[in-house]
Amino acid sequence: MDYSAMHPQEVKKLIREGKIDFQTSGMCAGYAQANLCILPKDYAFDFLLFCMRNPKPCPILEVGDVGSREFKAMASEGDVCTDFPKYRIWKNGVLEKEVTDISEYWQDDFVYFLIGCSFSFESEMLEADIPVRHIEENVNVPMFNTNIELASAGAFHGNMVVSMRPIPNDLVVKAVEVTAAMPKVHGAPIQIGNPEAIGILDVNHPDYGDSVTINEGEVPVFWPCGVTPQNAVMQTKPPIAITHAPGHMFITDVKNVALKY
Amino acid sequence: MDYSAMHPQEVKKLIREGKIDFQTSGMCAGYAQANLCILPKDYAFDFLLFCMRNPKPCPILEVGDVGSREFKAMASEGDVCTDFPKYRIWKNGVLEKEVTDISEYWQDDFVYFLIGCSFSFESEMLEADIPVRHIEENVNVPMFNTNIELASAGAFHGNMVVSMRPIPNDLVVKAVEVTAAMPKVHGAPIQIGNPEAIGILDVNHPDYGDSVTINEGEVPVFWPCGVTPQNAVMQTKPPIAITHAPGHMFITDVKNVALKY
Repeated sequence: MDYSAMHPQEVKKLIREGKIDFQTSGMCAGYAQANLCILPKDYAFDFLLFCMRNPKPCPILEVGDVGSREFKAMASEGDVCTDFPKYRIWKNGVLEKEVTDISEYWQDDFVYFLIGCSFSFESEMLEADIPVRHIEENVNVPMFNTNIELASAGAFHGNMVVSMRPIPNDLVVKAVEVTAAMPKVHGAPIQIGNPEAIGILDVNHPDYGDSVTINEGEVPVFWPCGVTPQNAVMQTKPPIAITHAPGHMFITDVKNVALKY
Repeated sequence: MDYSAMHPQEVKKLIREGKIDFQTSGMCAGYAQANLCILPKDYAFDFLLFCMRNPKPCPILEVGDVGSREFKAMASEGDVCTDFPKYRIWKNGVLEKEVTDISEYWQDDFVYFLIGCSFSFESEMLEADIPVRHIEENVNVPMFNTNIELASAGAFHGNMVVSMRPIPNDLVVKAVEVTAAMPKVHGAPIQIGNPEAIGILDVNHPDYGDSVTINEGEVPVFWPCGVTPQNAVMQTKPPIAITHAPGHMFITDVKNVALKY
């Protein structure tokens, strides 16, 4: 199946039917994808402020009303409980299980947060003839914990998580230009070519997602990643939190161009 | 006194000493100015979400930690209780009084919100040879209630407030360009030349601030205004809220250029 040319509503129908429960990179080219964090209202102000103080890893695309499962800005229809291919249930900061539907876990005091995802700008990179290795190799993007400490907000604190794409030397500047124009989906890279500088000791062993080939003449380039809230949930230990599973994103009905400067 | 060439810390010293208790347009050219809204923590999530859903009138520059009077991002030192020339105390949505120091009203559960102010881009307009009439006439900017309904968030709802500057016909496009580059301080205008379209019946009788001369060959141009939260406070009626008095702004230590795209 070529999911890259499909409309978001077609792919989300397959997700709701359980026919897609795998990672979404490369799907619905030109449409923005989103990360998820769901928290009880008591944690919502601190988390929203945490995101605002750390807009590179946590650019907010939409926040639900208290108790609401509906989308207003980022999709014309849908249900936050069924429209991601895979979710993670967290209790007191510990990952309890992964599920494909969270309807039975929904609480009236839940608030969902949609956060921009770098899968969004990958179709822009491909348009600019910049290779995206994990799409070529049909695996999930490699993601890493870092030593980059974030600004705290109330209960929330933690370090930045990053995604990595190997970029040919002569295309690094172009990759910065293309992605910098899209700050709502993480924007420009945070590090180019020196993983040790941000505490990554082995670029071939990601903390989340899959390893990809780095060819001769390519450098690893690191972008802020929307898995960062999961790191913050582990540190902050709210009684319950629900996130997407890394790489298993919400495909919005909003085109990338609408999120550019 | 020529306040336009002074550094923000010099002007804020005069404000703290009570020597400046008047409006701040034209002061500290090149530095961003900010609106204020202070609310109890119970209202903080709804208000922050209201601002995020209405970023044109309510662009967030900084949010304090619960109970904190200090600035981190927008000033190197200072006290939110003393550094505005004039404040308004609101009880249940009704303006109770105006004061120049709110220390005696401060509560441990208060959260302050600094919101971008269009005074910031006036020095950029002057640099581009666009006249700013209320600075020429040494009065406060004219501000108006409108019929533009905002996106609600929890308890918060209301209509947009706008500021008006008369712009010569041949400089209107330039005024749009200059201000559009600064979305953190309201950005581009919301209406050009047709006040009735946004519910303003008499452009010579503002709801806040002062009236200014509109010359032959000039059109009134309207920008989203950071007095909008005061309109929302009137509608939402929180038990207590504190805002700045319209036009009596916080002068940040951050230059306009740092807030541009």
